[in-house]
Order: sequence, then C-alpha cells, then structure tokens
Amino acid sequence: MADQDRSPLGLVVYKLKTLDGLKEFLEHRYFQWTILSLIIINAITIGMETSPAIVSTLGDWLKHLDNFILIIFTIEISLKVFAYRHRFFLNAWNVFDFLIVAIALVPAAGPLHILRTLRILRTARLIKNVPKLRLIIESLIKSIPSIGWIAVLLFMIFYIFAVIGTDLYMDRFPEYFGDMGKTMFTLFQIMTLESWSSGIARPMMQEIPYVYIFFIPFILLATYTTLNVFIAIVVNTMNEINRAEMKDEEERVKDFMHQEHQEMLQYLSSIHKKINSMEKQLKEEDKKV
Amino acid sequence: MADQDRSPLGLVVYKLKTLDGLKEFLEHRYFQWTILSLIIINAITIGMETSPAIVSTLGDWLKHLDNFILIIFTIEISLKVFAYRHRFFLNAWNVFDFLIVAIALVPAAGPLHILRTLRILRTARLIKNVPKLRLIIESLIKSIPSIGWIAVLLFMIFYIFAVIGTDLYMDRFPEYFGDMGKTMFTLFQIMTLESWSSGIARPMMQEIPYVYIFFIPFILLATYTTLNVFIAIVVNTMNEINRAEMKDEEERVKDFMHQEHQEMLQYLSSIHKKINSMEKQLKEEDKKV
Amino acid sequence: MADQDRSPLGLVVYKLKTLDGLKEFLEHRYFQWTILSLIIINAITIGMETSPAIVSTLGDWLKHLDNFILIIFTIEISLKVFAYRHRFFLNAWNVFDFLIVAIALVPAAGPLHILRTLRILRTARLIKNVPKLRLIIESLIKSIPSIGWIAVLLFMIFYIFAVIGTDLYMDRFPEYFGDMGKTMFTLFQIMTLESWSSGIARPMMQEIPYVYIFFIPFILLATYTTLNVFIAIVVNTMNEINRAEMKDEEERVKDFMHQEHQEMLQYLSSIHKKINSMEKQLKEEDKKV
Amino acid sequence: MADQDRSPLGLVVYKLKTLDGLKEFLEHRYFQWTILSLIIINAITIGMETSPAIVSTLGDWLKHLDNFILIIFTIEISLKVFAYRHRFFLNAWNVFDFLIVAIALVPAAGPLHILRTLRILRTARLIKNVPKLRLIIESLIKSIPSIGWIAVLLFMIFYIFAVIGTDLYMDRFPEYFGDMGKTMFTLFQIMTLESWSSGIARPMMQEIPYVYIFFIPFILLATYTTLNVFIAIVVNTMNEINRAEMKDEEERVKDFMHQEHQEMLQYLSSIHKKINSMEKQLKEEDKKV
Repeated sequence: MADQDRSPLGLVVYKLKTLDGLKEFLEHRYFQWTILSLIIINAITIGMETSPAIVSTLGDWLKHLDNFILIIFTIEISLKVFAYRHRFFLNAWNVFDFLIVAIALVPAAGPLHILRTLRILRTARLIKNVPKLRLIIESLIKSIPSIGWIAVLLFMIFYIFAVIGTDLYMDRFPEYFGDMGKTMFTLFQIMTLESWSSGIARPMMQEIPYVYIFFIPFILLATYTTLNVFIAIVVNTMNEINRAEMKDEEERVKDFMHQEHQEMLQYLSSIHKKINSMEKQLKEEDKKV
Repeated sequence: MADQDRSPLGLVVYKLKTLDGLKEFLEHRYFQWTILSLIIINAITIGMETSPAIVSTLGDWLKHLDNFILIIFTIEISLKVFAYRHRFFLNAWNVFDFLIVAIALVPAAGPLHILRTLRILRTARLIKNVPKLRLIIESLIKSIPSIGWIAVLLFMIFYIFAVIGTDLYMDRFPEYFGDMGKTMFTLFQIMTLESWSSGIARPMMQEIPYVYIFFIPFILLATYTTLNVFIAIVVNTMNEINRAEMKDEEERVKDFMHQEHQEMLQYLSSIHKKINSMEKQLKEEDKKV
Repeated sequence: MADQDRSPLGLVVYKLKTLDGLKEFLEHRYFQWTILSLIIINAITIGMETSPAIVSTLGDWLKHLDNFILIIFTIEISLKVFAYRHRFFLNAWNVFDFLIVAIALVPAAGPLHILRTLRILRTARLIKNVPKLRLIIESLIKSIPSIGWIAVLLFMIFYIFAVIGTDLYMDRFPEYFGDMGKTMFTLFQIMTLESWSSGIARPMMQEIPYVYIFFIPFILLATYTTLNVFIAIVVNTMNEINRAEMKDEEERVKDFMHQEHQEMLQYLSSIHKKINSMEKQLKEEDKKV
Repeated sequence: MADQDRSPLGLVVYKLKTLDGLKEFLEHRYFQWTILSLIIINAITIGMETSPAIVSTLGDWLKHLDNFILIIFTIEISLKVFAYRHRFFLNAWNVFDFLIVAIALVPAAGPLHILRTLRILRTARLIKNVPKLRLIIESLIKSIPSIGWIAVLLFMIFYIFAVIGTDLYMDRFPEYFGDMGKTMFTLFQIMTLESWSSGIARPMMQEIPYVYIFFIPFILLATYTTLNVFIAIVVNTMNEINRAEMKDEEERVKDFMHQEHQEMLQYLSSIHKKINSMEKQLKEEDKKV
C-alpha cells in the first residue's frame, strides 16, 4: 500500500512501526513544536502552582495537567532511547534532557518537597529544544577554558584570605569569620562590594584599627582578577571573530591577485610561445641560409 | 504672480495652499528649529511646575504657555498627517511623535493626575527632532537583536529561580518571596547586588543555614549572563566597524595592485603586439625568401 | 664677552636679560624639575596641614614654606606671561596653570576658609608638568565628543524621571523626592544602585505597591545608557589604534608588492627595449633585402 | 659502572653526587609533582587547622605534617641554592619562592601569631610551580605599565579629595573624615559605591546641604578614571593579539604574492634569455649578410 493511500493517522501508525519511521516522527518539526509548547505550558502551570489562590481553585486541574505533560515527556524520552539506543547518550544535551525528566519521576512525598520544587528545572529543556538558546549556552561553555585558570587563581585568593580571616578574626567576629564556610561567604559578599565597609569593615575597625590591611588588598586582588575573567572572554570572542574575518579578507585579496596575475600569465605564456616559434623559425632560416 | 513679487507672509500663505508648498514649509529648518525650541521650553516649564513656589506665582502663565505649545504641536502633527497622509504613519518616528502628542490631549482631570505628569514625555520628541540623538537611539535599537536571545535566557533564569524561591521561602519570608511578583523584584534587587547579603541572605541564613545554595548560583548565573549581554554589544559594534575598515583596506590594496599591474600589462600588451608584428614580418620574409 | 667666560650665575643673569635667554631658562629641564619638586613638596605640606598635631608643632614652618612656594609659582607664571605675552594664553594648559596659581592669591580670610582648602588644587599642576599625565588627560578629553550625545540622552532620561518622580512622590516622600534637586540626587544614587531597593524602593512600596514601575525602567534605561557611554569609549579607542595598524600593514604589503613588481618591470622594460631594437633591425634588414 | 647497572635508588644517590645530576633531579617532573602535591596538601592542612574541632582531635598530626612539609621545602630550596648558586636569585620567581619558605622559618611564638597565620601564603608557591598560573600572573604584571600612569592620576584624585574632605569635614564628621587615613578609607568606600549615599552623603546633607558638590564630582572622576584603567587593559591586550595576527596575515599574503610572482618571473627570465639569444643570432645573420 503506497503512503498516499493511507489516512493520516494510519500513516503515522504505519511509519512508527519501522525504526526509521520512528526517527522521522521524533525529528519532525510538528512533534518538536508540540514538545516545545508543552515545556512552556508546563513552566506556566508550575509557576501558577506557587499561588495559593490559584491552587485552591484550579489545583486539581494543574496537577492532572502536570502529570499528563510528565507522561508525554517520559514517553518522548523513552521513544528516543528506543530509537537511537546507546547513541542517544553520546550527545550531552540528550543526557541533560534525560536527567531533567528522570528527576521529575522521583516520588515527591514528605521530606522531598524540594524535589517537587525542582520540577521547574524542566523549563531548562527549552535550552535544548530552541537552537538559538543552545548556541548561546554552547558559546558560554566554550568560553570557560579561557577563564578556567583565572578561576583557579581566584579560588586561591579566596582560600588564602579565608584561612587568614578565619585564623585572625574567628574569636572576635564569629558571625562573619566563625569558620572557613562563613568566611568564604563573607569574602564572596565583600567581592560583590555589598555592605563591605558599612556592614563589616567599619564595625571591625572600632576594635582592630588596622583591619583595612585585610580588606583593601582582598578587594583589589579579587576585583582585578574578576575583571580579568571578563577581559579574557571579550578578548577571546573578538579574537575568534577577527581571525575569521581576516582570513576572509586574505582570501579575497589573494583571489583578486590571482585573477589579475592570470591575465598577465596568459600574455606571458602567449609571448613565450611566439618567441619560441620565432626562435625555431630563425634557426630554420639559418639552416636555409 | 512670481514668488519673488510677494511679501514674505503672502508667500508663505500662498505656498501653504499647495501640498508641495506645505511639505516644503514643514521640512524647512526654521520651522524645525521653532518646534525644537518649543520642545525645550516646554520641558523647562513642565519642570518648573513641580515647584509649588513657582506655581503659586507663575502658575497661570505656565499653564497658558503649556496649552499654547500643545496647540502648536497639535497643529504641527495635523498638518503633517494632512500633507503626507498614510505615508506619515509608515515612519516609526512619526508614530512615536503622534502618540506623544495624542497622550497630552487626553483630559487630565481627577484620577488622571498621572496622565498630566506624563506630559513630560513630550520631551522625548527631542530624540526625533535631533538627528544625532535619533542616530544613537537607532543604533541602541539595532543592538537589541544581538542581545535578544540572551535576554530570553536571563528571563528563564529569573523565572526558574522565582518559582524555586517562592515555593521554598514564601511562608517564612513573605516580604521578599511572598508571591511570584515579589520574588521577581527581590531577584532583580539581588542581581543589582544591592543589600543582597546584609539585607536578605544573612537574615535568612539564621533560620535556613543552607540558603546560600539558592543565592550564590543565582548571582553567578545572573551576573555572568548580564555580562554576556554587554560583551555581545561590544563585540557586535566592534565587529561592524572592523568589517567596514577591513573592506576599505582591501579596496585600497586591490586598487594599488591593479594600478601597478596596469603598468605591467601595458608593457606586456605592447611586447605582445610587437612580437606579433615581428612574427608576421618573419613569415613574409620567409615567403619572400 | 663669550658665554663660556662667565660664572654660571653671571651667565644666568646675562641670559635672562634677553627674551630668548629667558625662554631658554623657563624651558630648561632643571627649571622644570625644580617646579615639579615644589609642586610635590607643596602637595605634601598642604596634606600635613590637615593634621592638628603637626600644625601645632610645625604650623609656622609649613605656612612659611607654603608662602615661599606660592611666591615662586607666582614669579614663574609672571615670567612666562612676560616672555610669551598673549601667546601664553593660547595654550589651554597655560590658562589652567595660571588660574590655579591665581586662585591661591585670593586672600584666604574668614568666610573664605574654603578657598584656603582649594590650595590643594595646585597639585593638579602636576598634570601640566608631567607629559605622561598630560597625555592621559588629553586622551580622556578627546574621548568626550564620542560620548557627548549619549550624555545628553542620559540627562534627558534623568530630567524626565526627575519631573515624574517629583510630581508623583513629592508629598509622600519629601526626603527623596521633595524638589527637582533632591530627586536628581536620588536618581543619581539609584543609578549607582546604592540602597536603591532596601533604602528607597521597598519602604515606598509599602505605601505605593506599584512604585517598581518607576524604579525598574529607570534602572534599566540609566544603566544601559551608561553602559553605552563605556562601550563608545572602548570602541573608539580600539578603532583609532586598529585603523593606524591596518594602515601600517597596508603600507608594508604595498611596499613589498612594489619591490617585487619593480623586478618584473625591469625585465619587461629590458625585453621591451630589445624587442624594439630587434624590430628596427628587422625593418632595416627588410630594407636591405 | 654504567647507569643501567645500578638499582634505582643507587642511581639517584650516584647522580646527586654530581652537580649536573642534582640539577637533573631538581628539574625532574616526578620531583616537581611531589613538591606540587605537598603544596596542595599543606594548603589543606593549614585550612583544617582553622577548625577547633579538627585541631582538638588531629592537632598533633597536623602540626607534625606541617613541620615535615616545611622541612622538605627547606631542603628543596637549599638544594636549589646549592645547585644554581647566585644564578638562583636572578629569577624573580625563585626569590619569591625563597622568601615564602623563609618567612615560615621565623619562630611563630607569642606576639607572632600573625606570622603563623601567614604560613598559608606558602600556597602561593602554586603560582610558581604551575606554568599556566605563572603565565597568567606574568601577563597581569605585564599589563601594569599600561595602567601605571592612570593609577598615578587616580592617586592624585584621591589625595586632592582627601585633603579637601579632611579640611572641611574633620570637625563635624570625625568618624569618616577625622584624619587623612580615615578620609582615604572613606573615599575608597565611596569609589566602590558602598553605602556612599544612604550611609555617608545623606546624613551629612542634613547638616551641610551642599555636600553633594564634594561627592558627585569625586564619584564621577574616580569611576571614570577606574573605567579607563579597565579600558587601557582591554585595548592593550586586544592590540597585542591583533598586531600578531595582522603580521601573520601580512606574511601569508606576501608569501602567496611572492610565489605567484616567481612563476611570472620564470616566464620573464626565459623570454629574456631567448630574446637575448635571438638578438645575438640576428646580429650574426646581419654580419653574415
């Protein structure tokens, strides 16, 4: 029976029976748009569930809708795993997709209220399913290596100042420097420059006047290093684009040059041939003579 | 009657009778300068009306002046609509101009005090009427597409953290996380790093010690994404300028090359011709011989 | 009497008698180093005068030293005016120098305590007298035109929001929005993001819940516009440097091309000549034949 | 006895007896990895010593381990000094390494508790021993000259405003402007924009309404100058990379041009030769004739 003879539904069912047909179905843009719409609808319904007023009137509906969407997502991922087998897990984005849906299947009872909250992470599936967003995330991830070692340096600065701060101030200012964890958080706050002076440094300076020897070098080092993270990203991105463009320019100049030279080479080759034939002629004349 | 025989006023009146004359009048720089001056004067008088002291002495004058300027603006826009018909509305700046003047015509009584305040938006007409400002705004608007999808990503980060924050903290910290709206505002405040720790995170940590798991990832993600908005604009702007300049350089190198090659081609062509004639000559000699 | 026969002091005195000699003296590096040292010494002594402890012991010395340095500066500027006449005032840096010294000559009595404080501005003479600093300031000033119109735009945003803010909130929040001046200062504070939410927006939201409609657009517009000031400077600076470098590269490529072409042209010209002479020879042979 | 006949330990001992063998040992990657591991282990143990709970159970062990690692470091540096003599101190990184270890040898008793805390600075040895980190630090240091004079300018702005602030406000606001040191710290806080308005400027404005004349110019000057530090670094880094890339592009264009020209030159040279021989032939024919 030819494809065009079947009813649309019959066609879908028929095609799904074969593996290639299943893949075609999973990669069809109508299917992808459906999944995309469900992700967005799900994000909205999960957002609505934060409102007690809405939950008290529409709560059951929202819960059913949420379960329904989750079932669709589960079927979608299962079909993909079935269709692509182990190759499905070779793509990092697929693993990301799989984990997000898997988390939602853990029963969200009693102490696991927080897991129920994490359902909203399903919204992150948008990134995988909108090519433009995936591109941005991929380019953000690609910029990580260029900042990796600066991050190591920043961590070293944090660690050194955290040990010094905890050691020197843990007794007198336990709220800010009570242990390594508290000091790290305090240093992160200082790095964002939030209340570093009015909230932390000035009250401390009333007891320890020279405490600015701790704060000012930390602020200068931490902000300067952060700045360099930023500069590294700008310079890297510019650089890649520039290199590509210079390459283009180079090619165009070379092409132009090559064409102009071709013209000259034709002349030269034609002159060369004629000179050769003249030379031969002259020699023949010579012989004749 | 020729134009030069009329009195200046008569000429204006005569010209306005024809549609082309009206257009010429509306596009005349004296007319545009008058409108520009009125926009600036209007901005100043509206500013003066915020001072009770000035209003109590000059209030009536300012009101009359404001009404007078509004009438001029209304006539100006009406004439433009009359002169250019539907084509007037094809230019986004004209629509912008039209709406700003239209808003001011809504009666500003009783509960509509806020509309009266919005009269100051008429100052924004400056943008349309000063070419340099229009250029800047247009270039700012042109930079939006390059940041559009990063903005979508930023909104996603906000939305996900807003749902998580509202869900987990709405009961205990209703002031900051009471509903989606309040949480969104709180997240915006945190993104600007204003009092995020001393005002919000530290008080919460006394009840929920691990709350930094919510704050620090949000700050890192939100600031890193914002940073990338910024980088996208810098890189895009640089890129466009660079491309234009490289194109220029390319053209100049090609031109130079072409000229030098021309000189060589002339030689080659001349040599070619002479060789040709010599060849012919030799053949003729051959025949003679 | 020849220069080399005089004592050093005699030479100076002799030279100063002529206008050219005076100029030479004023432009001599020893003289300039002396002035530079006096500026730095003066900066230090004025700084020392802020300490009551130092003033109580060294106060008289410092005052005498200050007066002495001021006299030297006055003589220096007077000599320069005398030597260069009106041309002295053609250079903006000289006018800057002149005004700074002139301010110091205003008697600093009674209510003019503030003028006495402004003596420290003499330190700014360093900028004029250290070429590297002058270069930086000149390049900062040169970057102003590129940001000029964005600054106008920023002022417009400030003015529009100041009128709206004063109009809507002057009655209920006179501390922050009492009049145009107070509102402008508040908007500047908000633009720096300092306590904008915890200090201003949140207290206001308890009375006017929708006040965020005022704050968030202002913050977005003001920071985005400021960002563009910054981008304009980066892009401009990069641009100028890039253009210069591309120009250099272009020149080197052209030079290289020209040299290579010269070699080819010599061949061509030599071939051309020989072909010409061969042609002539052939014609002569023809005639002979 | 040949190297391969010895036991591994015997080989090490034998090699260490010679100076070249010692150098080889010190530069061996296994040795360097050992030192690297000890630095990281030491950083962790010093961090653990900040926790009273850990110290009460593992305190002695940690102390012994710390002493053991310090002894290894001391031996390492001593061997290096022994092996390389004065040349060891010619490298700034070696001096840095030497000083960090030397500090740790100062007895950390009584009032020198702070020296004991500074042991954590040994972690900074990581920088010297991880080439990637050393590269980053070297590039950060290389960017200093380009910002040096802007830093001088920033210091000048600080100094001038510090003298003015101390002079005018020391009596009424001793906490913020009590002496030059306090004012400098306050200005640093203002430059970071932390609580500049809500904490400092607004309380002062209730006594001195025009105090914003002091704050706003300082903020504008200080942030604009800091911005230019940042721009200087971006522009410099971009510049260096750009120049290198343009150089590369230039070389490739020249190479390509040279190759194409070679082809043309071969033709030309061949034509030239043939023309020469033809000329000679013609002349000979002439003679014959």
